Order: sequence, then C-alpha cells, then structure tokens
Amino acid sequence: MSHTRYPNQWAKIRENIREPAAELLGTMILILVGTGVNCQFALSADVNISPSPQGSYLGFNVAWGCAAALGVWVSGGVSGGHINPAVTLCMAIFRGLPWSKAFTYILGQITGAWIGALIVFANYSRGIDIFEGGAGRRTLKTAGLFSTYPLTYVSSANCFFDEFIGAFILVFVVFAISDKHNTGLHPSLVPLVIFFLILCIGAAFGMQTGYAVNPARDLGPRIMTAMVGYGSQVFTFRHHYWIWGPIIASCCGGLVAGLLYDLFIYRGPESFINRP
Amino acid sequence: MSHTRYPNQWAKIRENIREPAAELLGTMILILVGTGVNCQFALSADVNISPSPQGSYLGFNVAWGCAAALGVWVSGGVSGGHINPAVTLCMAIFRGLPWSKAFTYILGQITGAWIGALIVFANYSRGIDIFEGGAGRRTLKTAGLFSTYPLTYVSSANCFFDEFIGAFILVFVVFAISDKHNTGLHPSLVPLVIFFLILCIGAAFGMQTGYAVNPARDLGPRIMTAMVGYGSQVFTFRHHYWIWGPIIASCCGGLVAGLLYDLFIYRGPESFINRP
Amino acid sequence: MSHTRYPNQWAKIRENIREPAAELLGTMILILVGTGVNCQFALSADVNISPSPQGSYLGFNVAWGCAAALGVWVSGGVSGGHINPAVTLCMAIFRGLPWSKAFTYILGQITGAWIGALIVFANYSRGIDIFEGGAGRRTLKTAGLFSTYPLTYVSSANCFFDEFIGAFILVFVVFAISDKHNTGLHPSLVPLVIFFLILCIGAAFGMQTGYAVNPARDLGPRIMTAMVGYGSQVFTFRHHYWIWGPIIASCCGGLVAGLLYDLFIYRGPESFINRP
Amino acid sequence: MSHTRYPNQWAKIRENIREPAAELLGTMILILVGTGVNCQFALSADVNISPSPQGSYLGFNVAWGCAAALGVWVSGGVSGGHINPAVTLCMAIFRGLPWSKAFTYILGQITGAWIGALIVFANYSRGIDIFEGGAGRRTLKTAGLFSTYPLTYVSSANCFFDEFIGAFILVFVVFAISDKHNTGLHPSLVPLVIFFLILCIGAAFGMQTGYAVNPARDLGPRIMTAMVGYGSQVFTFRHHYWIWGPIIASCCGGLVAGLLYDLFIYRGPESFINRP
Repeated sequence: MSHTRYPNQWAKIRENIREPAAELLGTMILILVGTGVNCQFALSADVNISPSPQGSYLGFNVAWGCAAALGVWVSGGVSGGHINPAVTLCMAIFRGLPWSKAFTYILGQITGAWIGALIVFANYSRGIDIFEGGAGRRTLKTAGLFSTYPLTYVSSANCFFDEFIGAFILVFVVFAISDKHNTGLHPSLVPLVIFFLILCIGAAFGMQTGYAVNPARDLGPRIMTAMVGYGSQVFTFRHHYWIWGPIIASCCGGLVAGLLYDLFIYRGPESFINRP
Repeated sequence: MSHTRYPNQWAKIRENIREPAAELLGTMILILVGTGVNCQFALSADVNISPSPQGSYLGFNVAWGCAAALGVWVSGGVSGGHINPAVTLCMAIFRGLPWSKAFTYILGQITGAWIGALIVFANYSRGIDIFEGGAGRRTLKTAGLFSTYPLTYVSSANCFFDEFIGAFILVFVVFAISDKHNTGLHPSLVPLVIFFLILCIGAAFGMQTGYAVNPARDLGPRIMTAMVGYGSQVFTFRHHYWIWGPIIASCCGGLVAGLLYDLFIYRGPESFINRP
Repeated sequence: MSHTRYPNQWAKIRENIREPAAELLGTMILILVGTGVNCQFALSADVNISPSPQGSYLGFNVAWGCAAALGVWVSGGVSGGHINPAVTLCMAIFRGLPWSKAFTYILGQITGAWIGALIVFANYSRGIDIFEGGAGRRTLKTAGLFSTYPLTYVSSANCFFDEFIGAFILVFVVFAISDKHNTGLHPSLVPLVIFFLILCIGAAFGMQTGYAVNPARDLGPRIMTAMVGYGSQVFTFRHHYWIWGPIIASCCGGLVAGLLYDLFIYRGPESFINRP
Repeated sequence: MSHTRYPNQWAKIRENIREPAAELLGTMILILVGTGVNCQFALSADVNISPSPQGSYLGFNVAWGCAAALGVWVSGGVSGGHINPAVTLCMAIFRGLPWSKAFTYILGQITGAWIGALIVFANYSRGIDIFEGGAGRRTLKTAGLFSTYPLTYVSSANCFFDEFIGAFILVFVVFAISDKHNTGLHPSLVPLVIFFLILCIGAAFGMQTGYAVNPARDLGPRIMTAMVGYGSQVFTFRHHYWIWGPIIASCCGGLVAGLLYDLFIYRGPESFINRP
C-alpha cells in the first residue's frame, strides 16, 4: 500500500521502518511470554520463592504456543508475522521475499528477542539469585531459562536431527496454512494454527534439545545472557551448539520442508519449482 | 445506531444504559468465573472439603483466560468489551472514546466485579470457613482468592514492573487485534485471542504479584472483601499496594503499550500520533 | 426450508423427525464423551485397572467442554444445538421456539443422554466391577460417574445456588453468542465458545455439586443407572436432589439469565421484553 | 480445477500424484507429532533420560489432537484431509469418492505413517535403548510407543467395542462438520474441530485400547517396528489384534456412524440413503 500523503513527518518515517519494527515487536512478545514462562515454571518450583510450584510441562508448551500465536497476531498484517529467521529465509528462497527486506526482518527479530529476554531477566533477577543460591551467581542452570542447551545423553548428530525435525514441521505447516489454495485459512487465523503447531513441536520434540526451531528465539536471549553475567560459556557450550543447532539445523529443516511442500503441493508461480 | 422508535418505554431507557450495563455484566462474568476458579482451586486442596484436589496452575490460567474471553463475548458487540479500566483509559486516549462514556464504563466494570465476587463469596463461604479453620474467620489467606497480594520476596519496584509488563502485553495485543488494518481479525473472534493472552500473561508473569493487570478485576473484589469481614487490611497491605500495583502500574503499562503500538504500527487518524 | 419433493419415502419421514433426532444424537455425543471421561479418569486411578492414572481435573473439564462443543457441532445447523432442556426452555420463553417443538427436543435430549450413558456403562462395566471390588457391585461411588451427587458438606441451599449460578452463566453466554447483533459470531463457531463456557463453569463451580447445569445430562444417565443395578437410591439420594438440583435450579438459573440478557442487552422483537 | 498448461514437466507429473501425496504428508505429520509425544512422554519419565518427567495424560491427548489437526491443515485443501483409511472408506461409500482414488489415499496414508514413525524412532532410539535397559533391546514396552496394545484386563469383545465407539464418534463428527448444510463450518476450520474431537476420544475412550481409531495410524508404525527389531510379536500379539481392532473395529464404527448420520440428518444426493 503506498500512502503518498502522510499526516505528519513521523508517519512518513514510520512507513520505512514499520515492517522490521513489527517483526521486532512480535518477536519481543514471543520472548517476553516464552522466557517468562520458563522463569516462572522453574523458579516457582523453589520453595524459597513460591509457596507452590506453578507450572507443568503441558503448561509450558501451551504458553510457548500462545507466545508464538500472539507474536504473529501482533505483526501478521504488517510484516507477515515471521518472527523466525528460518521462516524469513524460506520466504526469501521460495516465496520471493526480497533479500534486503529479509535482512532487516532478521535483524529486527534478533533485536526483539534480545529486548524481550532482557525485560524478563530484569523482572526475575531476584528470583534467579535465590534459585542459584546467591546474589549474582549465574550458571547454565538458569542460562537455560533464556536459550536452549541439549540434554547430555543426546549425541550431537541427534541434536542436529531433533532441531531439523522440529523446524521441518514448523515450516511445512506454515507453508500449508499460508497457501491460499490449500484450506484457504483467513490470515487472521494463521496464529491459531501457530499455537497448535508450537505446542505440539514442544510436546513431541522438546525434551532432547529444548526445541529452539528459531534462530532469533535462541540467539537474542543468548547474547543477553552473555552480557548480564553468564559470560562466554553460553557460546562455547558443546562445540558452539548455538551455531549448528538453533541456527544451522533449524534453517536446514525449514529449507527441506519448503522444498517438499513446493515439490508436491504448491502450484504458485513465486516458487522456483514452478518456473518454466 | 439510532433507534428513534422503541417498542416500549423500557426499551427507550435501556438504550441509554446498554453500554455500561454490558461492561458491568461482562466484568461480572469475568469475576464470577475467575474468582470462582480461585476458590475451587484453593478449597479443593483441603481434605476436609474435597476428596481430591481439583486444580492445577495451568487449569487456573486456562480458566482465567476463558473467563476473560467469555466476558468479552458477552459485551463485545455492545460496548466494545473492554471489561478493564486500563483498556478503557487507553481507548479514551488513543482511540477517541469519549471521556464521559469512559467514566460510565469504568464504573460499570468495578460494580460488575464487585457483584461477581460477592456471588462467588456467598457460594463458597462455607468452604472458606472450613479452609480458614473456623466459621467467620477471615484472613489474607482467603482474601487472596478475590484480589491480588504479591509474594513477600518481591521488592516493591519489582511488583510495579511485573504489573507494568503484564498490562503492557495485554494492551499491546488488544490494540493489534482491534486494528482493522493488521491481521483483520473479525470482532467475534477477538475474545479467542483474549483467551490466549490472559492465559499466557498468567503463565509468564503471574507468580510474583498475582497479575491483576486490570484495576476493576482487583478493586471490585477487594471492596467486597472489606465489606464481608476481611476489614481494612485488604487496603493497608504493603503500603496500599491496591493503588500503586493493580491500578497505577497497570494503567502505565497500558499507556506505554498504546504509545508504542501507535508510534510504530498504527496508521488510523483517531490516534493523536497521527494528527497533522 | 420446505422440500416438497423428496427423493424417496424415508427422506419424507426424516423431514419430520430430523430436528429432535439431531438433539438426540447431539446429546448422545455429549454424554458418550462426558461420562466416558468420568469413567476413564476414575477407573485409571485404580492400579488394578491401569498402569498409570490417566486424568487430571483440568483434563476432566477440558473433555466436558469438548463434549458439549462436539454435541453442538453435530446438531447446531439442524435443530439449533441446544442439547440442554434448560436452554430449550429459555428459547421457548424468550425466543419464540414453539412449545410443541420444545417438548420433542427435550424428549430427544433425555433419550440421547440415556443411550450415551448406557453405551459408556457397557464399555466400562468390567472396569467398574474391579473398581467397586466385585462383579455386579454397584454403589453411589460409581453412580457418580454418570450423574451428579453433591459433596456432603454443602448445604442444600448452597447446592441450589451453585447449580443456579452455573446455569445462569451458561444461558447468559449462550444468549450473547446467539444474538446476531452482539459480536456477530458465525453459527459454526458457537460450539467453540461452548467449549470455553463448559470448561470454565466446571473449573469454577464444579466442585460442590458436580455441575449438571443441564437437566438431560443428569436425568438420562440417572435413569440408566437405576435400570442397570444401582436401584432407587440414585433418585432418593438427598431428598430427591435429582429434581431440585439438576432440573429446577438449572432452569431457574437459565430463566434469570435470559431475563437479564433481554432486559439490558437484547433488542430483538421475539423477546417478550421488547413487545409493545 | 483443471490446469491444461503446466509451467514445467514436473508440475504436470505433480498433478497426478498431488492428492495421495497430500494424504501421505498429512499422515506423516500426524504420526511425527503423535508418536513423538508418546516417546517424549514415556522416556522423560525415566530419570536416566530426563531430569524431570515431561508429560501428563492431558498433554498426551492434547498433542494427539494437535497432531491430527495439523495433518488436516496440511492436506485438507488438496485431498480433503482424511489421513485415516476409515474416513476414506466412509467417503467412498457415502460421499461418492471414487474407489480408485480411495485406494491411492489409503496407500499414501499407510506409507506416510510408516515414514513418520521411522523418523521418530530414529530420533529417540538412544532414549529407547536407555529406557529398555540395554542397547538394541526392543520389547512391547516400547513397541507401544508406536502402535496400540490393549490393556490385559479388557476382554476382546470389549476391545472391539471400544475401538468401535471411538471410530463411531470420529466419523459421525467428521460427517457433521463436512456437511455444508449443518453448521456451515468453513473448510479451513474443520481441523480445529478435529483437534477437539481427537482430544476427547482419547480422554474418554483411550485407556483400554490406546484408541487407534485409524487403521493407518496403527498399521504404518506397526510395520516399522517389525522392521527395526521388534519382530513378529507386534503382529501376533493377542490373536492378531492389529487386524480386528485398529482396522476392522474402526471401519465398522465409522460405517455405522456414516449410516446413522445419513439416515437421520443428511439430505445430500451423494448418499445412497437419498437415492430415489
């Protein structure tokens, strides 16, 4: 939509930053709620903090599902509501999203995730002190409330495979529900499916790696933890898991999903599969 | 809509009170269900009351989400379904709701919350007697079933911040889903998003303060408790938390959310951000 | 819709029984799922039956919500999907449903509930034998899996009040979502709201009486239990609770809800409130 | 829709395999998530695998509901989204789906289920080793994570009846929500009802047999288990339960549901009930 007349100067400026701003704010909502529930779930299990535990693994997955849905409801009509660099990458490759725009989206997503995690950290820092057993103590035990750290027994290949499957399901379903010629879901209801989607990726593939399935969801909060006292261990952990798990494996899973969807289902001309 | 012809005298009177009445009834449904679930959750954990506990923290958040959704389904098409003075305030400041109307809405909301809480109190008063350990004993232990009291370990600044974040998320998402030019959600489905929204504010930011995020939800039941035997402690608790937490912090969070949404996303002319 | 030409003789007959048949089948689905989940929840807690308990109070309320939603999805477009005599009564009084039709609806509802409960009883009768501690032993412990029996500590006035509130919320919300001039919800999505509605009536007002809030949901299964070996105690229990609780209190709550909705919100000419 | 011009050779080939491919991919998503949650639920309860259990029976049912909904969202607009041979069979008999197409659908469904289960098995095989107490040990304890094995106390007639009821409810509701003249649900929202439907079949009738209610959901993973080391016991178990339970009982339940729906509700000319 081109608005040649703007009511004021700011409205004109806004026009140029509106889409990445929506990605930033949507991802911020995702991480505010998502890492918020991580903190509340873990901290409330400590009797020095809460009179009763306030969480369950289902509640945890439900809340992450809600978080993602709200993030998309906030940004969907403005930027498309990717709030995930793996989705943005697939949209650039398979759906003609310009790469320059993709770049600003991804920057917005990582920044939004960083801000969201910082706010949650500030809100629960006293609780984290009690949980860690001392003011200012910061170990991976609570770093894991902000970004993902796989379980020890899972091999590296398995970690990669797990993140790959999660992101595969995510992008495959996203492609199906944004395909106007499949069930014809109204864009305003796409976030409802995202709720179910994230809920069940967590319920089925969350245990082993913590299911990042979203490079920004993991990287933004990880950078935040490195800055507020957790140090470089958040990056060096397990041969730099942060790169090959939440980023590379997620993107690979997404790309294969996009490829499969377009090979077998999609008829639209934006996909390179359907070029002459 | 102007109806110049009314079938009878009452229909003419109704026309003038219909909108605040919808806010009153919507907020009453919210509080009937919300404080009802608080009571059932807490009381059923007492073996003298129920053969088995009937609640979980997820169930608690799910029920509050339902409560808010039903409140909006009941009033949405009549008054807009605010059922929250912080939302009404933001609608007055950013969306041109007349202040005279805003005032009657807020009055209706507080009254509805008061009535809802009174009905729930009457229904569970025998259970509360058993739970408190004596007929007519009324302490903050059960006052907390009706309005919010933060945990002891949380600093006052943290309480303020927690309520601020909750109300920020609430109003930010409400502004997004009521923006016709975002995802284009049909008004009849707004309550569905409210369900997810309240559910996950509770799951992510409910532990420390009890997440009022709604001045009427807290004040109406608090006045009721003061009147049925809990006394003035419900107001004096923690340097008059009832004012600076559920009222001031919630409104501040909402206002910042409205400002951010309008600065970066909203193009409509009702917002003062978009005035020439 | 009048179809003067029928493809065959049965299609002509069907036309006359289609609406009560839809009420029967919808209520049967409600009770199949609802009392099914009661049985599975209770029986799976017995180590002689199941290796692990398979239920939670939230799951219980969620499943009853689903059950009601499915019942309405099955019958909504045919008969209006009341599946509850209290709703049918209110539709007759406030919305002009002919009394002759209301009578066949209620008959269909009770019959459907009876059939549904009988199928569930047949499916779980071996499990009930084990749970009761002997083949053919039938006590109120398992009669309560089919119809409602209030907790002992709750006074009779309180029982009445509890059922009254539950049915009040039920009918008030049903009137709001079936009012075309409120949020304008599409009829195909009414069952979605019914899901949230039943879920949270159970979560907020289910503990004390078992929340029948539906005369057919209680009476059909109660008649079934009397016939398969539980005897007359299912009727004589607590001064014939089955009449004054699930039937009279539910209908009173519904009627007051209908009256309030029409007094303050409804503008349609079918309501006697809006007659000249 | 006939597309006489194809952008390239592959697009022409795709046109002929698109529908069974959608069934394959939809069923694969169903089984990826469904058996994924089975594995995560069971394995996380083992302290050698996960620091805390990550599941609940409600979570389990919710996830299977999501799994089915996503499977239909993926394939609904292409093939109709059956992802269940019992549904395909009923569509062939009552709704005029050509038998040749039905055959390719069913083949696609079983293949998709097989692939999904294999991926999940690969992802959790190390966890299964630990859970079984030794690398490569494969017993029915973990075979039950992929296909269904009834509880011992349930008689064979009861097993049949249980699967019959589950499939009856499934097909009855599917027929209602795909009937344009019932509530008029938009096809893009059919999966939402499938979510509630599968959730509550599991909550009400899941304990005794494990509720296959879908021949492909059971057979595909069962073949996979036989191939990866569980051996022929997966087929010989309980007088070849795999045939008469998940296949025959499910199909019978579905057929009776279709018959009842068409006898009492359906007016469309595709049903043989409505032929002259």
